[in-house]
Amino acid sequence: MTGADPLATPRSARVAWACLSEPADPVAHDLATRLGVVEALDLVLHGSARARHARLDRFARRVAEFDLTRVLDATDRVGARVVVPGDSDWPERLDDLPRPPWCLWLRGPAVLGAVTARSVSVVGARAATAYGDFQAGQIASGLGDRGFTVVSGAAYGIDGAAHRGALAVEAPTVAVVAGGADREYPSGHARLLSAVADGGAIVSEVPPGSAPTRTRFLARNRIIAAMTLGTVVVEAGLRSGALSTAHTAAELGRPVGAVPGPVTSSVSAGCHEAVRRGWATLVTDADEVADLVGEIGADGAAPRRGEEHPADGVDDTCRRVLEAIPPYRSRSVDDLARIAALSAGEVLASLGQLEVAGLVERRLDGWGRSRPS
Amino acid sequence: MTGADPLATPRSARVAWACLSEPADPVAHDLATRLGVVEALDLVLHGSARARHARLDRFARRVAEFDLTRVLDATDRVGARVVVPGDSDWPERLDDLPRPPWCLWLRGPAVLGAVTARSVSVVGARAATAYGDFQAGQIASGLGDRGFTVVSGAAYGIDGAAHRGALAVEAPTVAVVAGGADREYPSGHARLLSAVADGGAIVSEVPPGSAPTRTRFLARNRIIAAMTLGTVVVEAGLRSGALSTAHTAAELGRPVGAVPGPVTSSVSAGCHEAVRRGWATLVTDADEVADLVGEIGADGAAPRRGEEHPADGVDDTCRRVLEAIPPYRSRSVDDLARIAALSAGEVLASLGQLEVAGLVERRLDGWGRSRPS
Repeated sequence: MTGADPLATPRSARVAWACLSEPADPVAHDLATRLGVVEALDLVLHGSARARHARLDRFARRVAEFDLTRVLDATDRVGARVVVPGDSDWPERLDDLPRPPWCLWLRGPAVLGAVTARSVSVVGARAATAYGDFQAGQIASGLGDRGFTVVSGAAYGIDGAAHRGALAVEAPTVAVVAGGADREYPSGHARLLSAVADGGAIVSEVPPGSAPTRTRFLARNRIIAAMTLGTVVVEAGLRSGALSTAHTAAELGRPVGAVPGPVTSSVSAGCHEAVRRGWATLVTDADEVADLVGEIGADGAAPRRGEEHPADGVDDTCRRVLEAIPPYRSRSVDDLARIAALSAGEVLASLGQLEVAGLVERRLDGWGRSRPS
Repeated sequence: MTGADPLATPRSARVAWACLSEPADPVAHDLATRLGVVEALDLVLHGSARARHARLDRFARRVAEFDLTRVLDATDRVGARVVVPGDSDWPERLDDLPRPPWCLWLRGPAVLGAVTARSVSVVGARAATAYGDFQAGQIASGLGDRGFTVVSGAAYGIDGAAHRGALAVEAPTVAVVAGGADREYPSGHARLLSAVADGGAIVSEVPPGSAPTRTRFLARNRIIAAMTLGTVVVEAGLRSGALSTAHTAAELGRPVGAVPGPVTSSVSAGCHEAVRRGWATLVTDADEVADLVGEIGADGAAPRRGEEHPADGVDDTCRRVLEAIPPYRSRSVDDLARIAALSAGEVLASLGQLEVAGLVERRLDGWGRSRPS
């Protein structure tokens, strides 16, 4: 490895920690919290045998291989840049995490702090159904239309559908990946990742070239959960990564939405369970997602009401009279009184109100329903 | 009409009120609440002109036609019986209604008070989808298996599917109808109604022969809502009668469940809105319905967990080591330490735990995953 000086700044020290430890490593974070990022790194790199503790050995192999210049060169080479807390590009919400990323590698023109200020995570199953793919696309494009940035992973299924939906309305998206920001993973999404990087950002907490391991996927999920205003899970099995992302979001106090589906669908079971247990709100479209995560007032969704009926405003007695009139016949006041079990006076009073409301009309042979004009 | 004496008992007076007024008529209930059922009837039948008020005129036409003997004869003739509050057959929960039925006409062998003690209303759209019909049937048969009586209307769609589901497991059901208990309405359900009456009960608050009008349908819904422990709505449009039944149940403090479906389905929109607004709980099967309405402990549904994985119980460090071992190869402790970013000592300690858990095994060339035995 290179000398100590270049690593004496917080920025360089953070890059080093991201290279020396696995994401969210408890020992590394514990050290940095107690000593400071730079001092903790110095201990790991240069500490005397006496000052060192056996638990630092986990970093030893990577310390031996670590080369800051090589990492920064690779960063440049893949067209990425590094951002750290305090940079204008740093999404401040990440600081809500107990073990936030040391730094992020970004590819793409988006200013991450700005585009995630108003953003929603849209996550879900890899093995999504056509229904789930469609809903993810609809919600993502609706959010894009409303000025929200869609954040997701880069997996097949819901992740891909969410990016495509937002990109279709020319809204930038953010893909948070588990491997290096340069990795085209999964390979079938190489073109999609390139489209994301063209207008938005690919984000990673591990250096370029890193493999997307399972541990890193799990750690990556906390970034998606923390970085946005809220998370929507479109389809998710009961033990899926998407559900764990959503659960992390809920634990961080972020609103979580879940899209329902057929109860016969195993990839809707996680959504249903989240709603049942009360930590997710049922959402059926982008309006309701915006309502869930948006500013009160600005993004509120009106309650669903269904069609309005002309008789909506009339009172119970009027309604009884109206219902006693068949669609294509007339009835006398006497008949109406008998059928509706009302007095003739009540029937006449109701007919007066219904006539004013344009619902009934007087005819030669009695009263009939008004024909739509 | 016949003389005053036979009407001087609460039972007869209630039958008379059910004949003279429309269900839940506010004037009739107001009178009976203030004067008593018998006294209020006496006022309507025999009050002097001075004691009478114009609002009593609504009953005048029916008073002129009313004949208690004829009503009771018709009741006998159609094989029905009348129950009133205080009878062992009377479902006491109906007394929670602000304007409960005066009496009920029953057809069928079920002791209504007993079979509704542990009962659930299963309601929904007439224009149900195949999905909704199937879910209604599954939930109803599951409830029947668990000793719950299914209560519903007799309409096409969800109502019919619910009865069929429960009858398929030989559980009695209760059909609350809007017309007389003798009316085969809708006509396509004549055989279904006959099957309901064979083992359970057909219930009506209007006398035999009465037509099922829209007003009576709306009034009937409150009986379904009040008579059971809780209500499940399987598919319902945003302005459907089923949703209004469920809403009435919620207003009475009864638990309400709603079955989700595709967000593209207009007959699931009412279910979703009820869950979103928080007055219904999302339910996906009979277990969850039983959990919702049943006694705590006796009927609780376990949270959904999905498949168990062998590595569920191990700690994060062990998991990192396990994930560093590929499925069909062995790895050295050194390799594992490098890949998992752990010290050799941590890897060895983890391997020891994983070996005890039966997840890894020592081989000549290193450590590998245990093969399922």
